[in-house]
Amino acid sequence: MVIPENSRIVIFGASGDLTYRKLIPALYHLFENNQMPSSFAILGASRTEYSDDAYRQKLKNSLTEQEQTDPQLLGAFCEHLYYQTLNTSDVDDYTQLKRRLGQLDRHYNFKRQNTLFYLATPPSLYDIIPGCLAAHKLNDVTNGWKRLIIEKPFGYDLRSAKSLDIEIQKHFKEQQIYRIDHYLGKETVQNLLVFRFANGIFEPLWNRNFIDYVEITGAEFLGVEERGGYYDNSGAVRDMFQNHLLQVLAMVAMEPPAAINADAIRNEVSNVLNCLEPLTDECLKNDLVLGQYTESMVKGQLLKSYRNEHGVPKDSRTETYVALKMFIETPRWQGIPFYVRSGKRLPTRVTEVVIHLKRTPHPVFAQNAPGNKLIIRIQPDEGILMNFGLKEPGAGFRAKSVSMNFHYDSLENIQMLTAYERLLLDALNGDATLFARTDAVEACWEFVQPILNYKQAPQSLFGYACGTWGPKEADALLRQDGRNWRFPCKNLTNTDYCEL
Amino acid sequence: MVIPENSRIVIFGASGDLTYRKLIPALYHLFENNQMPSSFAILGASRTEYSDDAYRQKLKNSLTEQEQTDPQLLGAFCEHLYYQTLNTSDVDDYTQLKRRLGQLDRHYNFKRQNTLFYLATPPSLYDIIPGCLAAHKLNDVTNGWKRLIIEKPFGYDLRSAKSLDIEIQKHFKEQQIYRIDHYLGKETVQNLLVFRFANGIFEPLWNRNFIDYVEITGAEFLGVEERGGYYDNSGAVRDMFQNHLLQVLAMVAMEPPAAINADAIRNEVSNVLNCLEPLTDECLKNDLVLGQYTESMVKGQLLKSYRNEHGVPKDSRTETYVALKMFIETPRWQGIPFYVRSGKRLPTRVTEVVIHLKRTPHPVFAQNAPGNKLIIRIQPDEGILMNFGLKEPGAGFRAKSVSMNFHYDSLENIQMLTAYERLLLDALNGDATLFARTDAVEACWEFVQPILNYKQAPQSLFGYACGTWGPKEADALLRQDGRNWRFPCKNLTNTDYCEL
Repeated sequence: MVIPENSRIVIFGASGDLTYRKLIPALYHLFENNQMPSSFAILGASRTEYSDDAYRQKLKNSLTEQEQTDPQLLGAFCEHLYYQTLNTSDVDDYTQLKRRLGQLDRHYNFKRQNTLFYLATPPSLYDIIPGCLAAHKLNDVTNGWKRLIIEKPFGYDLRSAKSLDIEIQKHFKEQQIYRIDHYLGKETVQNLLVFRFANGIFEPLWNRNFIDYVEITGAEFLGVEERGGYYDNSGAVRDMFQNHLLQVLAMVAMEPPAAINADAIRNEVSNVLNCLEPLTDECLKNDLVLGQYTESMVKGQLLKSYRNEHGVPKDSRTETYVALKMFIETPRWQGIPFYVRSGKRLPTRVTEVVIHLKRTPHPVFAQNAPGNKLIIRIQPDEGILMNFGLKEPGAGFRAKSVSMNFHYDSLENIQMLTAYERLLLDALNGDATLFARTDAVEACWEFVQPILNYKQAPQSLFGYACGTWGPKEADALLRQDGRNWRFPCKNLTNTDYCEL
Repeated sequence: MVIPENSRIVIFGASGDLTYRKLIPALYHLFENNQMPSSFAILGASRTEYSDDAYRQKLKNSLTEQEQTDPQLLGAFCEHLYYQTLNTSDVDDYTQLKRRLGQLDRHYNFKRQNTLFYLATPPSLYDIIPGCLAAHKLNDVTNGWKRLIIEKPFGYDLRSAKSLDIEIQKHFKEQQIYRIDHYLGKETVQNLLVFRFANGIFEPLWNRNFIDYVEITGAEFLGVEERGGYYDNSGAVRDMFQNHLLQVLAMVAMEPPAAINADAIRNEVSNVLNCLEPLTDECLKNDLVLGQYTESMVKGQLLKSYRNEHGVPKDSRTETYVALKMFIETPRWQGIPFYVRSGKRLPTRVTEVVIHLKRTPHPVFAQNAPGNKLIIRIQPDEGILMNFGLKEPGAGFRAKSVSMNFHYDSLENIQMLTAYERLLLDALNGDATLFARTDAVEACWEFVQPILNYKQAPQSLFGYACGTWGPKEADALLRQDGRNWRFPCKNLTNTDYCEL
């Protein structure tokens, strides 16, 4: 276990939801597991006024509400918390911040000014904060590293992502920029590489010769909840597809990295994302389905239509569902379709990858054999499910589909880090492997840009009832290829049960 | 479900152990499951004198001792049982048998004289009975099929097997001869073909490119028990290796049959057995280990040495253990070793096939990855176990070995036929797929003949303690190739527990 160097962590957006729900709990758990530096200070910064004590109390309350904590440990952890009121977009205000950091240096006797800046703010501040930090030389690396974690979304489209990069890179080098995609922090996503490249039983099969097609599903059970205002400017393509699902697809489809390090792995991620077959008008017309959920009764409960959600315009044309058939122009995947879908108000919350193997060439044995599927469950009920044909007991040689599975929760004595724990720890250790590099982010935006343009077309949006697997047009998308979406349930191995 | 044609079943050796323990229970179960012909008669024949009623009572007692039976069903079944005292080697005595069969024809109003002759006698009678039957034209097929089931062992070596075939085939055609290898009646053995040829996830891997080596183990927990006299003339090579294990190997290694029928499948079985790389003196010296169990304390109990078993000469050099490294000269298997072992008084009773996959070519991911194994459990705890590398949760991309499994007993609403039920039903239906054809039997004898010759050599036999996995020389056999035998336990998925 590598323990990070002593460092200061500055969280911008310190009174926001992400800080309370994800960042502070993650840092607390790292502390609890002795994975934090021997000396560290966490300095929250945002516009709201708090004293250090008031801020500590607020976080303490929030943590104890969320989970079981050890009072003594929590007390010790909170002593590392500090707060600085700051108008984040006012460059002059950063004088205070700098002064505060200096005090912490002296208090902790930090030899080096290692600093992790976490931008947990609205995206509009992503290009302002780096400039303000630079204006006060807080990006100076002569005596200690400076790293910038930037939350999603990174940009709003290809143009804005590029311009955001230009702004940030005026003050921070690419190696200092850690773009969060919390999907990459998930064990099950990282495992895709080990699963593919460490196993003699899977590695030889992982290509166009043996794989028929791939499904990737990122389904949400909930609607937009209180985030209607934000979501309506985003939509499923920006919110899930462009980042999380394309990153998962990259892990499924990338070539083996020459080594295991941030450069080698991210080179291959970038390579494969740059090889996505560009979406022509023809593709958009035939291979894309956008949907929006409509009012429906689910288990006796009337669920609102998207357009009736709080903060959503009554005539919104924002998609809450996207399904796309796409191809990857690498020798490995030539001609193999990837069907990727994501949506809100689907029957259950689930993210999974389904690898459909080709049938065997045997004229008789293959006849009644089930298609072999390898299901890699990203969340929840993390695990692997594989189905295959076994001889149906009795006369003859008919095949019957049976399955084998592995569940992560069967691992004993294993501490699984949450995505934010993993990513914070990696950033503190200077390991950028699980963060999105600029070329990958731009490749994703470049790929989805035609969809963003097409979204404006009046005929582009189909309705679907809450609690269903999206518009019927999405089923037709596979049916025209003689296929069907897998019906994923909450539990990996239970095909009867869904939340709705 | 195909119901066999009305027929007469004649069991020679009707008062023997096999008839009581296997054949009658199997026929009763088929009756219970409505798989017997609508009209049938079972005529037991042997030297002991019984009336029909006395024989019925004896079988009834034997069945009720062995298992739960339904009195009414059992009564109905027993009405189909008849007995004829017969000196099996006296051709004149068969007049009685013929007369009895004629009576049954009239009683049941059989339109055709379909007859299954089951030779559950000592092997010395295998070439006598067919001649006696022929002498009374009981092999006449002009009005009804005549089939001959012959128990193992079929021959004692290559020469005797060939001469037995010549004798039998004077009176019965090869298509009428059903040579029992009860291993072929096992679901798990038959499943090898479906598993291999119906699954897109396994079929592409099943060759020298992806498989590193194959282990086949047929282990027995018991010693020779009361069969010392018989066993001492046989030994592990004849008793297990030459028949059961080579048949299992054939199912693992054969090419895909062009169709699913007795000819097509048995052609491929024969092909692969004829491609076993002949054992040279060099092979016998380096790749063969013969062993004999010695007296040892196991769990506080003193277990006799083989030489002290009842009926075994004190200076016996008969092997109770055999391990062999062998190769198959087909393009599919060129250079891939098959390690096959069998023995008595091993730690547990188990038959299994272990497919060891090659490591992936990745320089880093493969480094700490576990070797992938696919374990096909023939008996007991029938099932499939597969281990593979999963990302060890935490930092980095190290692989950790985990496993998935399938157990046959998880199948619901499935009635599994025992080997004898399956084989009797197939013979009644004229399906010879699961019976050994003459060319396959002779190929097996031809392959093992050098071992039978070598057994005589004074330096050829190693001792091993009861309850161990055989002589240490057998471990060395794999160790010299940088490998180890898998340690199989009674339960497929439990690696801690063995009977001893």
